Amino acid sequence: MNKVVWNQCRALLEEKRFRDLRELLAGENEVELAEVLEALAPEQAILTFRSLPKEQAAEVFSQLPPESREVIVSSATDQELGEIVEELFVDDAVDTLEELPANVANRMLRQARPETRRLINQFLQYPDGSVGSIMTAELIDLKKTDTAGAAIARIRRVGGDCESIYTCYVTDSQRMLEGVVSLRQLLLAADDTPVEALMDPSVITARTTDDQERAVETLMRYDFLSLPVVDKEGRLVGVVTVDDVMDVMEEEATEDFEKMAAMAPSEKPYLKTGVFALAKHRVAWLLVLMVSGMLTGGILGRYEAAFAAIPLLVTFIPMLTDTGGNAGSQSSTLVIRGMAVGEISLADFPRVVWKELRVSVVVGAVLAAVNLVRLLIQYPGSQMICLTVTIALFATVVIAKTVGGVLPMAAKLIHADPAIMAAPLITTIVDALSLILYFGIAQRLLPL
Amino acid sequence: MNKVVWNQCRALLEEKRFRDLRELLAGENEVELAEVLEALAPEQAILTFRSLPKEQAAEVFSQLPPESREVIVSSATDQELGEIVEELFVDDAVDTLEELPANVANRMLRQARPETRRLINQFLQYPDGSVGSIMTAELIDLKKTDTAGAAIARIRRVGGDCESIYTCYVTDSQRMLEGVVSLRQLLLAADDTPVEALMDPSVITARTTDDQERAVETLMRYDFLSLPVVDKEGRLVGVVTVDDVMDVMEEEATEDFEKMAAMAPSEKPYLKTGVFALAKHRVAWLLVLMVSGMLTGGILGRYEAAFAAIPLLVTFIPMLTDTGGNAGSQSSTLVIRGMAVGEISLADFPRVVWKELRVSVVVGAVLAAVNLVRLLIQYPGSQMICLTVTIALFATVVIAKTVGGVLPMAAKLIHADPAIMAAPLITTIVDALSLILYFGIAQRLLPL
Repeated sequence: MNKVVWNQCRALLEEKRFRDLRELLAGENEVELAEVLEALAPEQAILTFRSLPKEQAAEVFSQLPPESREVIVSSATDQELGEIVEELFVDDAVDTLEELPANVANRMLRQARPETRRLINQFLQYPDGSVGSIMTAELIDLKKTDTAGAAIARIRRVGGDCESIYTCYVTDSQRMLEGVVSLRQLLLAADDTPVEALMDPSVITARTTDDQERAVETLMRYDFLSLPVVDKEGRLVGVVTVDDVMDVMEEEATEDFEKMAAMAPSEKPYLKTGVFALAKHRVAWLLVLMVSGMLTGGILGRYEAAFAAIPLLVTFIPMLTDTGGNAGSQSSTLVIRGMAVGEISLADFPRVVWKELRVSVVVGAVLAAVNLVRLLIQYPGSQMICLTVTIALFATVVIAKTVGGVLPMAAKLIHADPAIMAAPLITTIVDALSLILYFGIAQRLLPL
Repeated sequence: MNKVVWNQCRALLEEKRFRDLRELLAGENEVELAEVLEALAPEQAILTFRSLPKEQAAEVFSQLPPESREVIVSSATDQELGEIVEELFVDDAVDTLEELPANVANRMLRQARPETRRLINQFLQYPDGSVGSIMTAELIDLKKTDTAGAAIARIRRVGGDCESIYTCYVTDSQRMLEGVVSLRQLLLAADDTPVEALMDPSVITARTTDDQERAVETLMRYDFLSLPVVDKEGRLVGVVTVDDVMDVMEEEATEDFEKMAAMAPSEKPYLKTGVFALAKHRVAWLLVLMVSGMLTGGILGRYEAAFAAIPLLVTFIPMLTDTGGNAGSQSSTLVIRGMAVGEISLADFPRVVWKELRVSVVVGAVLAAVNLVRLLIQYPGSQMICLTVTIALFATVVIAKTVGGVLPMAAKLIHADPAIMAAPLITTIVDALSLILYFGIAQRLLPL
């Protein structure tokens, strides 16, 4: 929406010329309209929303963030509520209801027609993160005895109520999936071709109870625009569309970033999350890691005599533990991400460990060599200390990378989340191991 | 593809019954066929590929990884090469040519028709990571004077050569974009409706030279299936489709994971990258961070007298630096990811800093309190040491979170990559600061 339209919109609101406002906004994009509503004061947003025609209103509504939806719903009449809930696609209606305060949600649900209400209640039961929770019910179903021409005619008739009309599903009288045919195939075929001759009978599906990440993987693997969803009896109950899958992809990646940085994943965008909510997401893991840092301190305490005798030893601790932590994070990040995008599976366990071991030897050797040269220049008289630090560095890198490769796969093996179990722990584990190594080597090589 | 088909396929290959093989594979999904080719020995893969009908062959080819493409291309006759390059969508042809050894690529390009060659050469010039490099040239263009019926007829005629037929673009005689209309709108309208009445004249576009991440953002924001691409004169030159954008999303997230874990991003999947390539991606940052770890060690060296006097002080170092590093990474990760998905912009700088400051006070207070209680129990006689560690911990968390919030935005401000500039450095910077703080406080509070 350009500045001119925006200014006109505000002027018409001021002058309460709602019919003109409706005309002004009729051609605007619903995503941009939603952004305009968000930017307006609540009362003005409500007035603007009411000026929109019914169908456009539903589209704009589904683009609004939860807080703005609540503002609109709270001020709507029962009739308006009924119109919104009927016009929304069922997945958007369910999202809205889940986010509204219970009393408002119930009022909204009461305004829906019985069949809509039944459908919404069914959708509300799919657990968060399941394919059922992101699918929508509106789709084009065809019979295999239809001709291409009849199928296109049907799409032209009922397509207005569907989120996705470009992939059609062929079902029998029991709603069992028999095949899939794209609008493209229908259009490119002669009018009298039967759907059965065009459809692909080996349909790739997801189940309502599958993890939503599976839908992402399947859609990406096959470059589909939508994926049919079946219940446990194999009956077609909905469809997952590519725009929803993209949202899931972005959310899942964000969640992995958060988990790997030792945070509980948050539902809302950063700027909309309160200070205490942010603090709560962060403090739990920091406490755990602080306690494990104390354990590392305990290990260090056992060598008090050593660094009281040679205080210089202490100054190499940050370099050793930081390098170990960084080397371990590199490996764990690659393995966690590889598993998340489906490039690495548990069957690759031995290959990953063997690869990390070899990489760590190469990387460790380079770092150790650079480090040795630098130490010999800086501390010309202390060859044995230089050697101690260098050996410890090499061993730390090898151990860090091996642990970094093994830990995420071990987490997966016991059905724990690799991002949350492995990433934040790597540094702590590697810290402890590298200190034990360092002082172990020092006690053998140095006069302690 | 099921096991039965797979076994039949291998049997037919053994018996060299290629015509039967062609029939067997005719109905199979091209993504799965590509996976089958990858799993076969090279000679068998070539034979199988040759049994496929021309169009299916091109689709399977575009799904193959670079190594397998090279095997196929190297063994193909000039005529076969010409058929492949003509059947491929131009973006897939360009990808293939970029990955092939120069002599093979040139041989392939020579077999293309002059107009295809001209188009490919133009596409080869778009820099890696630009919108131009991921777009395809084949699209449906309409004139605004067409009727919906005529437009549908045109789509049915030429749609077979287009990657995406569901969004059509309206251009004038100079190929300047005048509007966009979806196949859905065309189908739902009466046959005699002019395209001009249906099209949306305010088209959202990308430029060939835009960063590909911009295409991702736009497509996600508007839930489009494709995005038109214009050159700097505003002429329509191609279209970016949602499946390509999903690949970009996944690549960009993977790159950010790699950069934030202090690695150079890699082009190939982990299991297909060699040991030395992996080592090379990792060693550069580790060297940089090792050197900065040495600087931290140098800081620590200045306080040798302090920890020679009270060796207990040393045992708290891992807990302090680890907690600081973790607290800082939490903040930088949220800000980097927020900027990557477009939730946080540079204009939010003051809000982010203010938010991080408040969060850090809450988090720091909780950690400090837990820590103080534990220290007082464990070291009942050393109240001043307990107090020193506790104050240092609180200050470390506050500084770590502030630096973690500021650094990525500062990187963005000077047009550096926040993921690469901020994430790996946080730990090192925070380490140094927390040690200076810790010993600074110790020197004031303790008899040193």
